[in-house]
Amino acid sequence: MKEPSSLAARKATERILEISRLPVYRNRHTTLLTDLYQLTMMYGHFCAGRHQQRVVFDMFYRSNPCNNGFVIAAGLEQVVWYLQHVRFSEEDLEYLRSLHLFGDDFIEALRHFHFTGDLYAVPEGTIVFPNEPLLRFEGPIFEVQLIESAVLTFVNHQSLIATKAQRIVDAAKVNPVAPNAPVIEMGLRRAQNLDAAVFGSRAAYIGGCTSTSNVLAGQSFDIPVAGTQGHSWIQSFPSELEAFRAYARTFPDATVLLVDTYDVLNSGVPNAIIVGHELRKEGRSLKAIRIDSGDLAYLSKRARQMLDAAGLTDCGIVASSDLDEWTIRELALQGAQITSYGVGTSLITSNNCPALGGVYKLVAHEMNGKLEPCIKVSENPSKVTNPGKKKVLRLLKDGMAVADLIALDDEELNPEQPLTLFHPIHTYKRKTIVHYEIEELLQPIVIQGELVYTLPRLPEIRKRVEDGLCRFSSETLRHLNPHEYHVDLSQPLWDLKQRLLHELRG
Amino acid sequence: MKEPSSLAARKATERILEISRLPVYRNRHTTLLTDLYQLTMMYGHFCAGRHQQRVVFDMFYRSNPCNNGFVIAAGLEQVVWYLQHVRFSEEDLEYLRSLHLFGDDFIEALRHFHFTGDLYAVPEGTIVFPNEPLLRFEGPIFEVQLIESAVLTFVNHQSLIATKAQRIVDAAKVNPVAPNAPVIEMGLRRAQNLDAAVFGSRAAYIGGCTSTSNVLAGQSFDIPVAGTQGHSWIQSFPSELEAFRAYARTFPDATVLLVDTYDVLNSGVPNAIIVGHELRKEGRSLKAIRIDSGDLAYLSKRARQMLDAAGLTDCGIVASSDLDEWTIRELALQGAQITSYGVGTSLITSNNCPALGGVYKLVAHEMNGKLEPCIKVSENPSKVTNPGKKKVLRLLKDGMAVADLIALDDEELNPEQPLTLFHPIHTYKRKTIVHYEIEELLQPIVIQGELVYTLPRLPEIRKRVEDGLCRFSSETLRHLNPHEYHVDLSQPLWDLKQRLLHELRG
Repeated sequence: MKEPSSLAARKATERILEISRLPVYRNRHTTLLTDLYQLTMMYGHFCAGRHQQRVVFDMFYRSNPCNNGFVIAAGLEQVVWYLQHVRFSEEDLEYLRSLHLFGDDFIEALRHFHFTGDLYAVPEGTIVFPNEPLLRFEGPIFEVQLIESAVLTFVNHQSLIATKAQRIVDAAKVNPVAPNAPVIEMGLRRAQNLDAAVFGSRAAYIGGCTSTSNVLAGQSFDIPVAGTQGHSWIQSFPSELEAFRAYARTFPDATVLLVDTYDVLNSGVPNAIIVGHELRKEGRSLKAIRIDSGDLAYLSKRARQMLDAAGLTDCGIVASSDLDEWTIRELALQGAQITSYGVGTSLITSNNCPALGGVYKLVAHEMNGKLEPCIKVSENPSKVTNPGKKKVLRLLKDGMAVADLIALDDEELNPEQPLTLFHPIHTYKRKTIVHYEIEELLQPIVIQGELVYTLPRLPEIRKRVEDGLCRFSSETLRHLNPHEYHVDLSQPLWDLKQRLLHELRG
Repeated sequence: MKEPSSLAARKATERILEISRLPVYRNRHTTLLTDLYQLTMMYGHFCAGRHQQRVVFDMFYRSNPCNNGFVIAAGLEQVVWYLQHVRFSEEDLEYLRSLHLFGDDFIEALRHFHFTGDLYAVPEGTIVFPNEPLLRFEGPIFEVQLIESAVLTFVNHQSLIATKAQRIVDAAKVNPVAPNAPVIEMGLRRAQNLDAAVFGSRAAYIGGCTSTSNVLAGQSFDIPVAGTQGHSWIQSFPSELEAFRAYARTFPDATVLLVDTYDVLNSGVPNAIIVGHELRKEGRSLKAIRIDSGDLAYLSKRARQMLDAAGLTDCGIVASSDLDEWTIRELALQGAQITSYGVGTSLITSNNCPALGGVYKLVAHEMNGKLEPCIKVSENPSKVTNPGKKKVLRLLKDGMAVADLIALDDEELNPEQPLTLFHPIHTYKRKTIVHYEIEELLQPIVIQGELVYTLPRLPEIRKRVEDGLCRFSSETLRHLNPHEYHVDLSQPLWDLKQRLLHELRG
C-alpha cells in the first residue's frame, strides 16, 4: 500500500486496515467474485487496445423493494474493503489460464491489476430513491468493468436487508404495552449461507434492530448479542421446572424462560411464575418469558394476566414465530402483550422480496480524449438510463426534504434563486422552490485509487438512518402505498437525455 | 489432526484437506457462527455439570419449499468442513469473555472444544422428504448444541437452492426447439452476499444447471463458467455493429452477441446477421444471440425467422430476463425459439420461497447412563417430533421408490416378509408390501470425531440427483400440486411416539 497523501487518507487507511482484520473480512480473497462476462469484455477491450478508455458507471436501482417508499443504502464498507483487496493471485491467474479463453498478455496485465479510479458514493445509512446513483465509479474500463458484480452483490444485499429491517422495526414502534419495542434479529439458521447471516445482521442493525442472536456478527461488528435457551434445553431436563431453575441459577440477572415446550398456559407460565417468585426471594426478578409458537395474541394476553396476578408485573414477554412487519402490526392491533420481538426468516431473507434489483450502467465514456455522456435505451421507458456524470442533490426546506434532484456533475445551483422542478416523464407536473438548502448525497470515497473517506462505525450509521428518516413525511415512510417522493432531473440533464434519445432513434 | 485409524478415514481426510484449500473455504474461521443461546445453554449445562450428557439431535424439515414434492439434500460438504475446523481461537475466547456472561472455567473448557461425536447423514444429492432426518448427530450436549446454527444455515441454504434449480432445469426440459435446453445460473449480483452466490452456484449445479457466470464458484468447485458481454460493451463502441465485430474478433469460436441494447429486431439481429455472415466467410459460425429484455416469446420467434432467412440456422438464441420455472414453461407453450436460458434472481434467491425451514431437534438424551428417547410436543400436531435414534429406509419395488420408512435405529426389517405401512396420522390408510428392496439413507460420515466418509465431487453428486429422480413417479416430481410421497413411521417408532405423548399429557 502506498503512503497516504493526506491526513484524511491516513485516517481512512487506518480505519480500513482495522476493518480488514475483522473475522468476517480477514484473509478472504474474492477477486474472482465476478461474472465471466466482465473478464471476456475486459479481454475484448484489451485486444482492441481500448482497455484504458476512461468510463463512468452508475450503480442505482429502479424500484423500491417490498413496496416500500425508499431504500436505506448499505454495503459501502464491504465495497471499500473489496476495492482495497482486489488483486489477482497466481492461483487466480492459473485458473483463468486453464479456461483457454484468454491470451497470455492479458493474463500478465491482470497480474498488475489494482483499482486506480474514483468512487463517489452515498454514505451507508442514507435514505435513497429509485434511479439515484448510489455509487459512481470513474476510471479505466479495464478496472471499472471487473468490479461490477461484487459491488452489486454487496450493495444490493445489505441495502435490501437494512430496508426490510427498518420496516419491521417501524411496525414494532406501535405497541400498546411497549412503544418502540426492541426487535432482535435472529435469522442465522434461515439465512442464505454465512455472509448473508453476518452481513445481514449488520444491515439489520443499521435498519434499527437492537441486537442479534448471531455471535459472529456480534464479534465482527460490535452488535449487541442476545439469546437465552431453546426447546432442547427444556427437553434435556427431567421436567420443565427443573430446566427453568437450572437456567435461573446460571443467569440469575438475565433470566428469560422459554414457555412453549410443553403447554404455554398450563405448564410454561405457571412454572415461570414459580421461578419468578424464587428469584424475587433472592432480590432478583424474572426478566421475561418467551413464547415461540401458537397464537401469540391470545397467549401473550393470558400470560400477562397470569404474571400480573402473580405480582410479576415487570416480567417482559418476548415473542417470536414467523413474525414480519404485518404480523407485528396485527398483534399490536389485537392488543397483544408483547414487550419485544424476535424476528428471523422474514428479516434475514427479506422473504417477500429477496433481492434488490440494483444495476450498474455505463453513463459516460472517453471519446477523443473527452468524457462523453451515453445512454442505454429500452422498449421499457423506465429502463432508459440517465446519461452523463451526475450528482444527487437533496433539497430541503425547514429541515424537511422537498425533492431530490439528479443533476450533471458540473451544474451549479443557487439556492437563493427560484428553482422549477418537474416530473421527468409527466413534465407538466411542476413546482418552484426558493430559499432551499442543498445536501449533496454523493461523497468522495476513493480518489485516483486512494481511499479518502473514513468508514464510520455502526452507531454513526444508525444515527444517519434516524436523522435521515426525520426529514421525510409519514406518507413517504408508511409501509403500504407510500407517497412517491419527488426525484427529478435537472433541466440540463433532462435536455441531454432527450437529445441523446433523439439522436439514437433519429 | 490425529492419524486416521483406517484406510477409509485416510482417504476421507485427504479429500477434506483438499476441500479446505479451495478459495471459498481457505483461511476462514467460523466457530462463532452460532446463536448466542447455544452458548448460554452450553454454559448452563456446564454449570450444572451435565455438559457431557450424551444426546441425539435430528436435522429435518417439515414442509417442502416452493410447493415442490421433495427436496434435494445439499450442504453436507460445508458441514463436514465446518466440523473439521470448529475450534475457539484466543480472539473468540476474548470476545466471549468481554460479554460478561460466562465464567472463566467455561471459557477454558471452550479452548479445548472439538467435535468428538458421530454424524450420520444422507449424501448430497439425495431426494428427501418432510420429517426425514437428513443429518443425525450424537455426542456430548456441549458439542452437539454449539453446531446447530451453522449446520442448519449450510444445509437449509444449499438444499433450498438445489431444489429450486431442479424445478427450473426441469421446466427447461420441455422445449419445442431444444429439449433439455441448458440453464445457466447467473444470479451473482442478486445473491444475498458472497457465500449465497458461491455456494448457491454450487447448489444450482447439483440441481442440474449446466454452468455458472460466477467465476469464483467456477474456480472453487470446478463448475463450467459461461459469459459473453453486457450492454456496456455495446455502448462503449461508436456503433452496435463495431461492438459486435470487436467481440467476434476476440472470441471468433464462441461468439454470442447481445442484441437488445438498442432495438432487437431493427438493429441487434440485423447486425448480428452481418457478423454471422462475416464469421462464415472465415469458416466459423455465429454461436448464438442473446435477448435480455422485452417479450422473449415474440422476439425469439421473429429473431429465429430472420436468422433462418439469412441462412444462420445453427445460431442459437439465449434468453434471460427475470426467468423462473413458470415463465420458462409459458415460453415453451408459446413456441418461443429459445435454445438456452440464463436464470438469475429467482434461482439464486429461490425468490418465491427464500428459506427452507430445516430444524434441529433433540430426540434422545442420556438418563442414568442410557440413551432415552424424548419428544417435543406442540399445539400444532405437525410440530410434534419423532422421538429416538432413528434411521430412514427407502423401500423400492422394481427400482421404483414405494415409500420411505422412518424406523428406530435398532429395528431389523426382513424384506422377504410382508410389511404393512400406514399413514402416521390417518392410520387407517394402509398398504402391505413384500419382496421389496431397502436403501438405507443415513450413512456414517463422522464416527467418534473421525471423518470416515470421502466427500464426493460435484459430478458424482449430480449423478446421484439424476439417478434418484428416476425412482419417483412423475406425479411426485411435478411442479404443481405434486403427489404426497409416503413417509411412514415403523410400528415400533409409532408406538414409542404414542407412549411418550400420552406420558407427557397424562
